[in-house]
Amino acid sequence: MKALFFDVFGTMVDWRRGIAREAQSLLAPQGYALDWIAFSDAWRAEYQPAMEEVRSGRVPFVRLDVIHRRMLERIRPRFGLERLDEATLADLVLGWHRLDAWEDVTRAFPRLRRRFLMAPVSNGNIALMADLARRNDFRWDAILGSEIAGDFKPKPRVYLASVEAFMLAPGDCTMVAAHSSDLAAAAAAGLRTAHVARPEESPKGEAAPSIPVDFAARSFDDLADQLGV
Amino acid sequence: MKALFFDVFGTMVDWRRGIAREAQSLLAPQGYALDWIAFSDAWRAEYQPAMEEVRSGRVPFVRLDVIHRRMLERIRPRFGLERLDEATLADLVLGWHRLDAWEDVTRAFPRLRRRFLMAPVSNGNIALMADLARRNDFRWDAILGSEIAGDFKPKPRVYLASVEAFMLAPGDCTMVAAHSSDLAAAAAAGLRTAHVARPEESPKGEAAPSIPVDFAARSFDDLADQLGV
Repeated sequence: MKALFFDVFGTMVDWRRGIAREAQSLLAPQGYALDWIAFSDAWRAEYQPAMEEVRSGRVPFVRLDVIHRRMLERIRPRFGLERLDEATLADLVLGWHRLDAWEDVTRAFPRLRRRFLMAPVSNGNIALMADLARRNDFRWDAILGSEIAGDFKPKPRVYLASVEAFMLAPGDCTMVAAHSSDLAAAAAAGLRTAHVARPEESPKGEAAPSIPVDFAARSFDDLADQLGV
Repeated sequence: MKALFFDVFGTMVDWRRGIAREAQSLLAPQGYALDWIAFSDAWRAEYQPAMEEVRSGRVPFVRLDVIHRRMLERIRPRFGLERLDEATLADLVLGWHRLDAWEDVTRAFPRLRRRFLMAPVSNGNIALMADLARRNDFRWDAILGSEIAGDFKPKPRVYLASVEAFMLAPGDCTMVAAHSSDLAAAAAAGLRTAHVARPEESPKGEAAPSIPVDFAARSFDDLADQLGV
């Protein structure tokens, strides 16, 4: 094992409370009073349908920031946000660049980095990953994932383009994620898999993997313990 | 100005003495006694012709590691290295992953990083850049350049793909290099330019830029001073 690849949203950063906080901080001063967590959940719920349009080839690949904007457009009427100005909409989308890491991630990242090459293999674009890394002090060796692959997980190309960028074999790389579907696709591409429990991610957060994995960890600390670093 | 883009070979790391040292450490124990600096210069001299094959479209894009191997094949007969085994040849090519930074680079990098997004925009591939970063403690925000662009500098696509990955405008980005030709191409693509003098790079090392630039610095320390960080 030479490299660890990381899912980011949900696995490393708390999108649910982060987006709720960002939306409240931008919209409350404009007089909106939403159920901020419900808004966050609704925005994220548009994720898989929007991804699928690209993965299926119906629409061309674009950065996740563009997808986040499309997802936001779909839920605006439901939350009475039809009259937001362009600057506010753009800033809302940038809220995804301002999410905070779970505390175990911040603590265990340096331990994992001592032994392994570290890269996000996320559907997030490079600028988004760079901003989250600055905010949370993630010391990546490179930003891999969707933008270098030109497609979105769980398409095998995303995992394999990342493996190739580090000039490794799939079996040298372990995908770390809180989502069994991500790990199932990584395993099908030949990578090893590490599940991290995130029951706190959302009501759908996984307390345990639903598929066989190489490592099943309670937290990043536990993963570092299991990897002996 | 939001981002600094860096040329790496010659500008940040000393390829000439590094490759001479790596070649000596691999080949001297096998009984070879070359002029190690001449070997290093000869290897590097094949760089532009090999690049030009790709840039012209005559051969498809491949990683710089593959190009370095092709360049090595061309000079082997000249240095009596026809009988090296495959493992030694592969390790020689990996010598380019084990180069050391000029001391001013190591010193000034953290100062520059405080204010700017930092990325290599090199012809080196991602794994090569990641290895040099680990060795020399370069804290990149992302690894941009040739591999994400699928072409080599000074083709404009390499600079512009890097600008786009950070979701910036060309004028927000400054290319930092010790080579006027690199900076001329960056300027033509709309980037700002900073020349760093490296007369010690090789007999062709530039003590000053041969074209107009936005910043002309004696060292990375001087560049940090001029940028007020």
